[in-house]
Amino acid sequence: MNKSPTAEIISVGNELLIGHTLDTNSHWIAKRFTRFGWTLQRITVLRDSLAAIKDGVTGALRRKPDLLITLGGLGPTHDDMTLQGIAIALGKSLVLNQEALAMVKARYSKLEASTGLTRFRRKMATLPEGADPLPNPIGTAPGVTIKVGTTRLVSLPGVPSEMKAIFTGSVIPMLRASKAEAPKEVTIGLVGIIESALAPALDRTRRAFPGLYFKSHPRGREGGIRTLIQLHVYTVDPGSRAKLDNAIAYLLRELSKSAHTGAGRSR
Amino acid sequence: MNKSPTAEIISVGNELLIGHTLDTNSHWIAKRFTRFGWTLQRITVLRDSLAAIKDGVTGALRRKPDLLITLGGLGPTHDDMTLQGIAIALGKSLVLNQEALAMVKARYSKLEASTGLTRFRRKMATLPEGADPLPNPIGTAPGVTIKVGTTRLVSLPGVPSEMKAIFTGSVIPMLRASKAEAPKEVTIGLVGIIESALAPALDRTRRAFPGLYFKSHPRGREGGIRTLIQLHVYTVDPGSRAKLDNAIAYLLRELSKSAHTGAGRSR
Repeated sequence: MNKSPTAEIISVGNELLIGHTLDTNSHWIAKRFTRFGWTLQRITVLRDSLAAIKDGVTGALRRKPDLLITLGGLGPTHDDMTLQGIAIALGKSLVLNQEALAMVKARYSKLEASTGLTRFRRKMATLPEGADPLPNPIGTAPGVTIKVGTTRLVSLPGVPSEMKAIFTGSVIPMLRASKAEAPKEVTIGLVGIIESALAPALDRTRRAFPGLYFKSHPRGREGGIRTLIQLHVYTVDPGSRAKLDNAIAYLLRELSKSAHTGAGRSR
Repeated sequence: MNKSPTAEIISVGNELLIGHTLDTNSHWIAKRFTRFGWTLQRITVLRDSLAAIKDGVTGALRRKPDLLITLGGLGPTHDDMTLQGIAIALGKSLVLNQEALAMVKARYSKLEASTGLTRFRRKMATLPEGADPLPNPIGTAPGVTIKVGTTRLVSLPGVPSEMKAIFTGSVIPMLRASKAEAPKEVTIGLVGIIESALAPALDRTRRAFPGLYFKSHPRGREGGIRTLIQLHVYTVDPGSRAKLDNAIAYLLRELSKSAHTGAGRSR
Protein backbone atom coordinates (compact mmCIF):
# COMPACT_ATOMS: atom_id res chain seq x y z
CA MET A 1 0.00 0.00 0.00
CA ASN A 2 2.86 2.38 0.69
CA LYS A 3 5.10 2.75 -2.34
CA SER A 4 6.63 6.11 -1.53
CA PRO A 5 10.42 6.35 -1.29
CA THR A 6 11.73 5.71 2.24
CA ALA A 7 14.14 7.59 4.47
CA GLU A 8 15.76 7.41 7.89
CA ILE A 9 17.43 10.07 10.02
CA ILE A 10 20.31 9.50 12.43
CA SER A 11 20.82 12.49 14.69
CA VAL A 12 24.15 12.51 16.53
CA GLY A 13 24.90 14.51 19.67
CA ASN A 14 25.13 14.07 23.43
CA GLU A 15 23.38 17.43 23.81
CA LEU A 16 20.21 15.77 22.42
CA LEU A 17 20.41 12.87 24.89
CA ILE A 18 21.22 14.82 28.05
CA GLY A 19 18.19 17.06 27.48
CA HIS A 20 20.11 20.25 26.64
CA THR A 21 18.87 20.51 23.06
CA LEU A 22 15.53 19.54 21.51
CA ASP A 23 15.98 17.81 18.15
CA THR A 24 14.09 20.31 15.99
CA ASN A 25 16.29 19.40 12.99
CA SER A 26 14.63 16.00 12.52
CA HIS A 27 11.18 17.57 12.83
CA TRP A 28 12.02 20.18 10.18
CA ILE A 29 13.28 17.48 7.82
CA ALA A 30 10.28 15.20 8.55
CA LYS A 31 7.92 17.90 7.27
CA ARG A 32 9.86 18.15 4.00
CA PHE A 33 9.83 14.39 3.48
CA THR A 34 6.05 14.40 3.88
CA ARG A 35 5.64 17.38 1.55
CA PHE A 36 7.54 15.59 -1.22
CA GLY A 37 5.77 12.26 -0.73
CA TRP A 38 8.62 10.47 1.04
CA THR A 39 8.08 8.18 4.04
CA LEU A 40 10.36 8.77 7.02
CA GLN A 41 10.57 5.33 8.64
CA ARG A 42 12.71 5.99 11.68
CA ILE A 43 14.67 8.61 13.59
CA THR A 44 17.59 7.44 15.74
CA VAL A 45 19.33 9.78 18.18
CA LEU A 46 22.83 8.66 19.12
CA ARG A 47 25.68 9.65 21.43
CA ASP A 48 28.95 11.16 20.17
CA SER A 49 30.59 7.74 20.23
CA LEU A 50 32.25 5.86 17.37
CA ALA A 51 30.71 2.57 18.49
CA ALA A 52 27.22 4.09 18.65
CA ILE A 53 27.52 5.77 15.24
CA LYS A 54 28.91 2.66 13.58
CA ASP A 55 26.14 0.54 15.11
CA GLY A 56 23.40 3.02 14.17
CA VAL A 57 24.58 3.45 10.57
CA THR A 58 25.01 -0.30 10.08
CA GLY A 59 21.50 -0.96 11.43
CA ALA A 60 19.92 1.71 9.23
CA LEU A 61 21.68 0.51 6.07
CA ARG A 62 20.46 -3.03 6.77
CA ARG A 63 16.87 -1.72 6.43
CA LYS A 64 17.78 -0.31 2.98
CA PRO A 65 16.08 3.09 3.05
CA ASP A 66 16.36 5.05 -0.21
CA LEU A 67 17.88 7.93 1.73
CA LEU A 68 19.75 7.96 5.03
CA ILE A 69 20.45 11.37 6.55
CA THR A 70 22.91 11.84 9.40
CA LEU A 71 22.86 15.08 11.38
CA GLY A 72 25.69 16.53 13.44
CA GLY A 73 29.32 15.73 14.09
CA LEU A 74 30.95 17.23 10.97
CA GLY A 75 32.88 20.05 12.67
CA PRO A 76 36.58 20.45 13.49
CA THR A 77 36.68 19.31 17.13
CA HIS A 78 37.43 15.84 18.47
CA ASP A 79 33.79 15.21 19.42
CA ASP A 80 32.81 15.53 15.74
CA MET A 81 33.17 11.90 14.73
CA THR A 82 30.27 11.15 12.39
CA LEU A 83 32.38 10.69 9.24
CA GLN A 84 34.80 8.42 11.09
CA GLY A 85 31.87 6.35 12.38
CA ILE A 86 30.44 6.09 8.87
CA ALA A 87 33.82 5.10 7.43
CA ILE A 88 34.09 2.30 10.00
CA ALA A 89 30.53 1.14 9.24
CA LEU A 90 31.31 1.07 5.50
CA GLY A 91 34.76 -0.48 5.88
CA LYS A 92 36.30 2.48 4.08
CA SER A 93 39.24 4.71 4.93
CA LEU A 94 39.06 8.46 5.42
CA VAL A 95 40.86 10.45 2.74
CA LEU A 96 41.47 14.16 2.16
CA ASN A 97 39.00 15.21 -0.55
CA GLN A 98 40.38 17.99 -2.78
CA GLU A 99 36.96 19.37 -3.72
CA ALA A 100 35.99 19.56 -0.05
CA LEU A 101 39.36 21.10 0.83
CA ALA A 102 38.78 23.83 -1.76
CA MET A 103 35.40 24.56 -0.12
CA VAL A 104 36.92 24.80 3.37
CA LYS A 105 39.84 26.96 2.07
CA ALA A 106 37.49 29.35 0.30
CA ARG A 107 35.56 29.86 3.52
CA TYR A 108 38.60 30.52 5.73
CA SER A 109 40.36 32.77 3.22
CA LYS A 110 37.57 35.32 3.88
CA LEU A 111 38.47 35.41 7.56
CA GLU A 112 41.05 37.72 9.05
CA ALA A 113 41.37 35.39 12.06
CA SER A 114 42.44 32.55 9.81
CA THR A 115 45.65 30.88 10.86
CA GLY A 116 45.93 28.55 7.90
CA LEU A 117 44.66 25.08 7.15
CA THR A 118 45.38 23.42 10.47
CA ARG A 119 44.74 19.69 10.85
CA PHE A 120 41.47 20.62 12.54
CA ARG A 121 40.33 22.39 9.37
CA ARG A 122 41.62 19.66 7.07
CA LYS A 123 39.51 17.27 9.18
CA MET A 124 36.35 18.85 7.72
CA ALA A 125 37.59 17.95 4.23
CA THR A 126 38.54 14.39 5.17
CA LEU A 127 35.74 12.14 3.90
CA PRO A 128 35.08 8.41 3.59
CA GLU A 129 36.65 7.13 0.37
CA GLY A 130 34.24 7.54 -2.56
CA ALA A 131 32.20 10.30 -0.87
CA ASP A 132 31.52 13.74 -2.35
CA PRO A 133 31.14 17.07 -0.55
CA LEU A 134 27.91 19.09 -0.70
CA PRO A 135 28.38 22.88 -0.66
CA ASN A 136 27.66 24.64 2.64
CA PRO A 137 26.58 28.13 1.57
CA ILE A 138 26.72 29.64 5.07
CA GLY A 139 29.23 27.64 7.15
CA THR A 140 32.56 25.88 6.97
CA ALA A 141 31.91 22.12 7.15
CA PRO A 142 30.57 20.83 3.81
CA GLY A 143 27.83 18.21 3.71
CA VAL A 144 28.91 14.76 2.55
CA THR A 145 27.20 12.19 0.36
CA ILE A 146 28.02 8.63 -0.68
CA LYS A 147 26.01 5.89 -2.37
CA VAL A 148 25.87 2.60 -0.41
CA GLY A 149 24.09 -0.10 -2.37
CA THR A 150 20.63 1.32 -3.10
CA THR A 151 20.88 3.84 -0.25
CA ARG A 152 21.99 7.44 -0.77
CA LEU A 153 23.70 8.48 2.47
CA VAL A 154 23.85 12.21 3.19
CA SER A 155 25.65 13.74 6.20
CA LEU A 156 24.68 17.25 7.28
CA PRO A 157 26.00 19.51 10.06
CA GLY A 158 23.97 19.82 13.27
CA VAL A 159 23.89 23.63 13.35
CA PRO A 160 20.28 24.21 12.21
CA SER A 161 20.94 27.11 9.80
CA GLU A 162 23.73 25.20 8.04
CA MET A 163 21.74 21.96 7.96
CA LYS A 164 18.77 23.77 6.39
CA ALA A 165 20.94 25.55 3.81
CA ILE A 166 22.57 22.33 2.59
CA PHE A 167 19.29 20.40 2.75
CA THR A 168 17.55 23.04 0.66
CA GLY A 169 20.38 23.29 -1.86
CA SER A 170 21.31 19.62 -2.23
CA VAL A 171 18.68 17.30 -0.71
CA ILE A 172 15.39 18.89 -1.80
CA PRO A 173 16.39 18.37 -5.47
CA MET A 174 16.87 14.63 -4.68
CA LEU A 175 13.40 14.46 -3.08
CA ARG A 176 11.87 16.30 -6.01
CA ALA A 177 13.59 14.03 -8.54
CA SER A 178 11.69 10.99 -7.22
CA LYS A 179 8.42 12.60 -8.36
CA ALA A 180 6.67 10.90 -5.43
CA GLU A 181 3.16 12.04 -4.72
CA ALA A 182 2.53 13.83 -1.44
CA PRO A 183 -0.05 12.02 0.72
CA LYS A 184 -3.63 13.21 0.56
CA GLU A 185 -4.84 14.05 4.02
CA VAL A 186 -7.84 15.30 5.95
CA THR A 187 -7.91 16.23 9.62
CA ILE A 188 -11.23 16.53 11.46
CA GLY A 189 -12.02 17.48 15.02
CA LEU A 190 -14.54 15.34 16.92
CA VAL A 191 -16.09 17.10 19.89
CA GLY A 192 -17.81 15.52 22.87
CA ILE A 193 -16.65 11.98 22.36
CA ILE A 194 -14.04 9.95 24.21
CA GLU A 195 -11.52 7.89 22.33
CA SER A 196 -12.76 4.51 23.51
CA ALA A 197 -16.29 5.40 22.34
CA LEU A 198 -14.93 6.44 18.96
CA ALA A 199 -12.99 3.20 18.60
CA PRO A 200 -15.83 0.89 17.41
CA ALA A 201 -17.02 3.25 14.62
CA LEU A 202 -13.42 3.96 13.64
CA ASP A 203 -12.71 0.27 13.48
CA ARG A 204 -15.66 -0.34 11.13
CA THR A 205 -14.58 2.58 8.93
CA ARG A 206 -11.03 1.32 8.73
CA ARG A 207 -12.26 -2.09 7.59
CA ALA A 208 -14.53 -0.48 4.98
CA PHE A 209 -11.71 1.63 3.55
CA PRO A 210 -8.52 -0.39 3.24
CA GLY A 211 -5.55 1.67 2.04
CA LEU A 212 -6.49 4.65 4.20
CA TYR A 213 -4.53 5.44 7.33
CA PHE A 214 -6.35 6.67 10.47
CA LYS A 215 -4.71 8.20 13.51
CA SER A 216 -6.63 9.68 16.44
CA HIS A 217 -5.15 12.13 18.93
CA PRO A 218 -7.05 12.91 22.17
CA ARG A 219 -6.86 16.67 22.78
CA GLY A 220 -9.54 17.75 25.26
CA ARG A 221 -10.29 16.52 28.75
CA GLU A 222 -13.33 16.03 30.94
CA GLY A 223 -13.16 14.30 34.31
CA GLY A 224 -9.83 12.79 33.35
CA ILE A 225 -11.12 11.60 29.98
CA ARG A 226 -10.39 13.31 26.67
CA THR A 227 -13.45 14.68 24.91
CA LEU A 228 -11.94 16.37 21.89
CA ILE A 229 -10.30 14.12 19.36
CA GLN A 230 -8.26 15.17 16.42
CA LEU A 231 -8.59 12.52 13.75
CA HIS A 232 -6.07 12.48 10.97
CA VAL A 233 -6.88 10.44 7.86
CA TYR A 234 -4.46 10.07 5.01
CA THR A 235 -3.34 7.92 2.13
CA VAL A 236 -0.41 7.77 -0.23
CA ASP A 237 -2.51 6.18 -2.99
CA PRO A 238 -2.63 8.55 -5.93
CA GLY A 239 -6.00 10.02 -6.95
CA SER A 240 -7.80 8.98 -3.78
CA ARG A 241 -9.07 12.32 -2.55
CA ALA A 242 -12.70 11.18 -3.05
CA LYS A 243 -11.99 8.03 -1.04
CA LEU A 244 -10.91 10.17 1.90
CA ASP A 245 -14.10 12.23 1.76
CA ASN A 246 -16.22 9.07 1.55
CA ALA A 247 -14.44 7.57 4.54
CA ILE A 248 -15.07 10.67 6.67
CA ALA A 249 -18.76 10.68 5.70
CA TYR A 250 -18.99 6.96 6.54
CA LEU A 251 -17.36 7.48 9.94
CA LEU A 252 -19.68 10.36 10.84
CA ARG A 253 -22.74 8.26 9.91
CA GLU A 254 -21.45 5.42 12.07
CA LEU A 255 -20.87 7.80 14.97
CA SER A 256 -24.29 9.46 14.65
CA LYS A 257 -25.89 6.04 15.17
CA SER A 258 -24.57 5.92 18.71
CA ALA A 259 -23.51 9.27 20.11
CA HIS A 260 -24.14 13.01 20.22
CA THR A 261 -21.02 14.22 18.49
CA GLY A 262 -20.14 17.47 16.85
CA ALA A 263 -17.54 17.25 14.10
CA GLY A 264 -15.73 20.06 12.38
CA ARG A 265 -13.29 19.68 9.55
CA SER A 266 -10.15 21.64 10.21
CA ARG A 267 -8.32 20.95 6.97
CA MET B 1 34.67 6.01 32.86
CA ASN B 2 30.89 6.14 32.67
CA LYS B 3 29.34 3.84 35.24
CA SER B 4 25.95 5.51 35.48
CA PRO B 5 22.86 3.35 34.84
CA THR B 6 21.81 3.36 31.16
CA ALA B 7 18.48 3.93 29.45
CA GLU B 8 16.92 4.02 26.00
CA ILE B 9 13.66 5.56 24.77
CA ILE B 10 11.49 4.21 21.95
CA SER B 11 8.93 6.78 20.86
CA VAL B 12 6.12 5.36 18.72
CA GLY B 13 3.87 7.38 16.42
CA ASN B 14 3.48 8.28 12.75
CA GLU B 15 2.66 11.84 13.83
CA LEU B 16 6.30 12.18 14.95
CA LEU B 17 7.65 10.93 11.62
CA ILE B 18 5.40 12.91 9.27
CA GLY B 19 6.38 16.16 11.00
CA HIS B 20 3.01 16.86 12.67
CA THR B 21 4.29 16.53 16.23
CA LEU B 22 7.65 17.41 17.76
CA ASP B 23 8.84 14.72 20.20
CA THR B 24 9.00 16.88 23.32
CA ASN B 25 8.30 13.79 25.48
CA SER B 26 11.76 12.32 24.94
CA HIS B 27 13.38 15.68 25.66
CA TRP B 28 11.44 16.01 28.93
CA ILE B 29 12.50 12.51 29.98
CA ALA B 30 16.12 13.08 28.89
CA LYS B 31 16.42 15.98 31.35
CA ARG B 32 15.20 13.76 34.20
CA PHE B 33 17.65 10.99 33.34
CA THR B 34 20.50 13.52 33.47
CA ARG B 35 19.25 15.02 36.72
CA PHE B 36 19.28 11.59 38.42
CA GLY B 37 22.67 10.56 37.01
CA TRP B 38 21.37 8.16 34.37
CA THR B 39 22.82 7.99 30.85
CA LEU B 40 20.31 8.04 28.00
CA GLN B 41 22.09 6.09 25.26
CA ARG B 42 19.63 6.29 22.39
CA ILE B 43 16.22 7.57 21.30
CA THR B 44 14.45 5.69 18.52
CA VAL B 45 11.31 7.08 16.85
CA LEU B 46 9.20 4.44 15.12
CA ARG B 47 6.08 4.16 12.96
CA ASP B 48 2.80 2.70 14.22
CA SER B 49 3.69 -0.68 12.76
CA LEU B 50 3.98 -4.05 14.51
CA ALA B 51 7.07 -4.95 12.51
CA ALA B 52 8.77 -1.65 13.35
CA ILE B 53 7.93 -1.89 17.07
CA LYS B 54 9.05 -5.51 17.32
CA ASP B 55 12.30 -4.69 15.51
CA GLY B 56 12.95 -1.58 17.61
CA VAL B 57 12.27 -3.31 20.94
CA THR B 58 14.35 -6.37 20.01
CA GLY B 59 17.27 -4.13 18.98
CA ALA B 60 17.10 -2.07 22.17
CA LEU B 61 16.94 -5.14 24.44
CA ARG B 62 20.01 -6.57 22.69
CA ARG B 63 21.97 -3.52 23.95
CA LYS B 64 20.84 -4.35 27.52
CA PRO B 65 20.00 -0.89 28.90
CA ASP B 66 19.01 -0.89 32.57
CA LEU B 67 15.77 0.86 31.61
CA LEU B 68 13.88 0.87 28.31
CA ILE B 69 11.00 3.34 28.04
CA THR B 70 8.44 3.13 25.25
CA LEU B 71 6.18 6.11 24.57
CA GLY B 72 2.82 6.06 22.81
CA GLY B 73 0.45 3.46 21.45
CA LEU B 74 -1.32 2.37 24.65
CA GLY B 75 -4.81 3.69 23.82
CA PRO B 76 -8.00 1.94 22.71
CA THR B 77 -7.82 2.38 18.92
CA HIS B 78 -6.38 -0.02 16.33
CA ASP B 79 -3.34 2.18 15.73
CA ASP B 80 -2.32 1.71 19.39
CA MET B 81 -0.17 -1.39 18.99
CA THR B 82 2.84 -0.92 21.26
CA LEU B 83 1.93 -3.69 23.73
CA GLN B 84 1.24 -6.13 20.90
CA GLY B 85 4.60 -5.26 19.34
CA ILE B 86 6.35 -5.77 22.69
CA ALA B 87 4.57 -9.10 23.23
CA ILE B 88 5.79 -10.30 19.81
CA ALA B 89 9.34 -9.12 20.57
CA LEU B 90 9.29 -11.00 23.91
CA GLY B 91 7.55 -14.10 22.54
CA LYS B 92 4.76 -13.65 25.08
CA SER B 93 0.98 -13.67 24.68
CA LEU B 94 -1.30 -10.78 25.58
CA VAL B 95 -3.58 -11.48 28.54
CA LEU B 96 -6.28 -9.50 30.32
CA ASN B 97 -4.69 -8.19 33.52
CA GLN B 98 -7.17 -7.93 36.41
CA GLU B 99 -5.30 -5.18 38.21
CA ALA B 100 -5.17 -3.11 35.01
CA LEU B 101 -8.84 -3.84 34.32
CA ALA B 102 -9.76 -2.51 37.75
CA MET B 103 -7.85 0.71 36.95
CA VAL B 104 -9.63 1.17 33.61
CA LYS B 105 -13.03 0.37 35.19
CA ALA B 106 -12.50 2.87 37.99
CA ARG B 107 -11.78 5.57 35.45
CA TYR B 108 -14.81 4.93 33.24
CA SER B 109 -17.22 4.52 36.15
CA LYS B 110 -16.73 8.26 36.79
CA LEU B 111 -17.97 9.06 33.30
CA GLU B 112 -21.60 9.55 32.42
CA ALA B 113 -20.79 8.80 28.77
CA SER B 114 -19.56 5.35 29.70
CA THR B 115 -21.11 2.57 27.69
CA GLY B 116 -19.49 -0.27 29.58
CA LEU B 117 -16.24 -2.16 29.20
CA THR B 118 -16.20 -2.60 25.43
CA ARG B 119 -13.43 -4.64 23.85
CA PHE B 120 -11.74 -1.35 23.03
CA ARG B 121 -11.56 -0.54 26.73
CA ARG B 122 -10.51 -4.05 27.73
CA LYS B 123 -7.67 -3.63 25.20
CA MET B 124 -6.05 -1.07 27.53
CA ALA B 125 -5.96 -3.72 30.28
CA THR B 126 -4.57 -6.44 28.01
CA LEU B 127 -0.86 -6.69 28.74
CA PRO B 128 2.02 -8.96 27.78
CA GLU B 129 2.06 -11.99 30.11
CA GLY B 130 4.04 -11.21 33.27
CA ALA B 131 3.64 -7.43 32.95
CA ASP B 132 2.21 -5.15 35.65
CA PRO B 133 0.17 -1.96 35.25
CA LEU B 134 1.40 1.42 36.53
CA PRO B 135 -1.34 3.77 37.77
CA ASN B 136 -2.32 6.61 35.43
CA PRO B 137 -3.54 9.33 37.81
CA ILE B 138 -5.07 11.51 35.09
CA GLY B 139 -6.02 9.30 32.14
CA THR B 140 -7.43 5.91 31.22
CA ALA B 141 -4.61 3.80 29.81
CA PRO B 142 -2.33 2.56 32.61
CA GLY B 143 1.42 2.42 32.12
CA VAL B 144 2.92 -1.05 31.84
CA THR B 145 6.13 -2.56 33.18
CA ILE B 146 7.87 -5.88 32.75
CA LYS B 147 11.37 -7.13 33.60
CA VAL B 148 13.26 -8.63 30.64
CA GLY B 149 16.61 -10.07 31.73
CA THR B 150 18.47 -7.19 33.35
CA THR B 151 16.32 -4.58 31.59
CA ARG B 152 13.27 -2.95 33.20
CA LEU B 153 10.87 -2.17 30.34
CA VAL B 154 8.31 0.59 30.99
CA SER B 155 5.57 1.58 28.52
CA LEU B 156 3.97 5.00 28.90
CA PRO B 157 1.17 6.74 26.96
CA GLY B 158 2.10 9.36 24.35
CA VAL B 159 -0.25 12.08 25.65
CA PRO B 160 2.33 14.33 27.40
CA SER B 161 0.32 15.07 30.57
CA GLU B 162 -0.39 11.37 31.15
CA MET B 163 3.19 10.36 30.33
CA LYS B 164 4.53 12.90 32.82
CA ALA B 165 2.09 11.86 35.55
CA ILE B 166 3.02 8.17 35.32
CA PHE B 167 6.73 8.96 34.91
CA THR B 168 6.68 11.14 38.02
CA GLY B 169 4.70 8.63 40.06
CA SER B 170 6.34 5.38 38.98
CA VAL B 171 9.62 5.97 37.10
CA ILE B 172 11.29 8.75 39.10
CA PRO B 173 11.32 6.44 42.18
CA MET B 174 13.19 3.85 40.06
CA LEU B 175 15.76 6.47 38.97
CA ARG B 176 16.16 7.66 42.55
CA ALA B 177 16.61 4.11 43.85
CA SER B 178 19.79 3.65 41.78
CA LYS B 179 21.44 6.43 43.83
CA ALA B 180 23.45 7.40 40.74
CA GLU B 181 25.32 10.66 40.98
CA ALA B 182 24.26 13.47 38.66
CA PRO B 183 27.09 14.63 36.40
CA LYS B 184 29.09 17.68 37.44
CA GLU B 185 29.06 20.26 34.70
CA VAL B 186 30.32 23.68 33.72
CA THR B 187 29.31 25.66 30.66
CA ILE B 188 31.43 28.61 29.52
CA GLY B 189 30.95 31.03 26.65
CA LEU B 190 33.99 31.81 24.47
CA VAL B 191 33.68 35.06 22.54
CA GLY B 192 35.60 36.10 19.41
CA ILE B 193 37.01 32.72 18.50
CA ILE B 194 36.06 30.33 15.74
CA GLU B 195 35.65 26.64 16.42
CA SER B 196 38.57 25.49 14.32
CA ALA B 197 40.87 27.93 16.16
CA LEU B 198 39.61 26.61 19.49
CA ALA B 199 40.21 23.01 18.43
CA PRO B 200 44.00 22.79 19.09
CA ALA B 201 43.78 24.19 22.66
CA LEU B 202 40.70 22.07 23.34
CA ASP B 203 42.52 19.01 22.10
CA ARG B 204 45.46 19.63 24.45
CA THR B 205 43.09 20.19 27.38
CA ARG B 206 41.19 17.01 26.65
CA ARG B 207 44.45 15.04 26.69
CA ALA B 208 45.51 16.67 29.95
CA PHE B 209 42.19 15.84 31.67
CA PRO B 210 41.08 12.31 30.81
CA GLY B 211 37.65 11.47 32.26
CA LEU B 212 36.21 14.86 31.42
CA TYR B 213 33.81 15.28 28.54
CA PHE B 214 34.02 18.39 26.31
CA LYS B 215 31.40 19.47 23.81
CA SER B 216 31.57 22.75 21.86
CA HIS B 217 28.55 24.41 20.24
CA PRO B 218 29.09 27.26 17.76
CA ARG B 219 26.51 29.98 18.48
CA GLY B 220 27.54 33.29 16.92
CA ARG B 221 28.43 34.17 13.36
CA GLU B 222 30.80 36.52 11.56
CA GLY B 223 31.35 36.41 7.82
CA GLY B 224 29.87 32.93 7.72
CA ILE B 225 32.05 31.71 10.60
CA ARG B 226 30.82 31.24 14.17
CA THR B 227 32.51 33.51 16.68
CA LEU B 228 30.69 32.65 19.87
CA ILE B 229 31.19 29.16 21.20
CA GLN B 230 29.34 27.56 24.05
CA LEU B 231 31.62 25.00 25.62
CA HIS B 232 30.07 22.39 27.85
CA VAL B 233 32.39 20.39 30.12
CA TYR B 234 31.13 17.60 32.31
CA THR B 235 32.01 14.39 34.07
CA VAL B 236 30.20 11.59 35.83
CA ASP B 237 33.16 10.87 38.10
CA PRO B 238 32.12 11.58 41.68
CA GLY B 239 33.93 14.32 43.57
CA SER B 240 35.53 15.85 40.51
CA ARG B 241 34.24 19.40 40.72
CA ALA B 242 37.78 20.73 41.27
CA LYS B 243 38.98 18.82 38.21
CA LEU B 244 36.41 20.65 36.09
CA ASP B 245 37.58 24.04 37.35
CA ASN B 246 41.20 23.11 36.74
CA ALA B 247 40.41 22.00 33.19
CA ILE B 248 38.64 25.29 32.38
CA ALA B 249 41.60 27.28 33.78
CA TYR B 250 44.01 25.16 31.72
CA LEU B 251 41.99 25.69 28.54
CA LEU B 252 41.84 29.46 29.02
CA ARG B 253 45.63 29.59 29.55
CA GLU B 254 46.15 27.58 26.36
CA LEU B 255 43.85 29.90 24.44
CA SER B 256 45.46 33.08 25.78
CA LYS B 257 48.78 31.94 24.32
CA SER B 258 47.40 32.26 20.81
CA ALA B 259 44.27 34.43 20.58
CA HIS B 260 42.43 37.45 21.89
CA THR B 261 39.49 35.73 23.49
CA GLY B 262 36.98 36.82 26.07
CA ALA B 263 35.47 34.05 28.15
CA GLY B 264 32.53 34.26 30.50
CA ARG B 265 31.26 31.48 32.68
CA SER B 266 27.51 31.11 32.34
CA ARG B 267 26.96 28.34 34.85
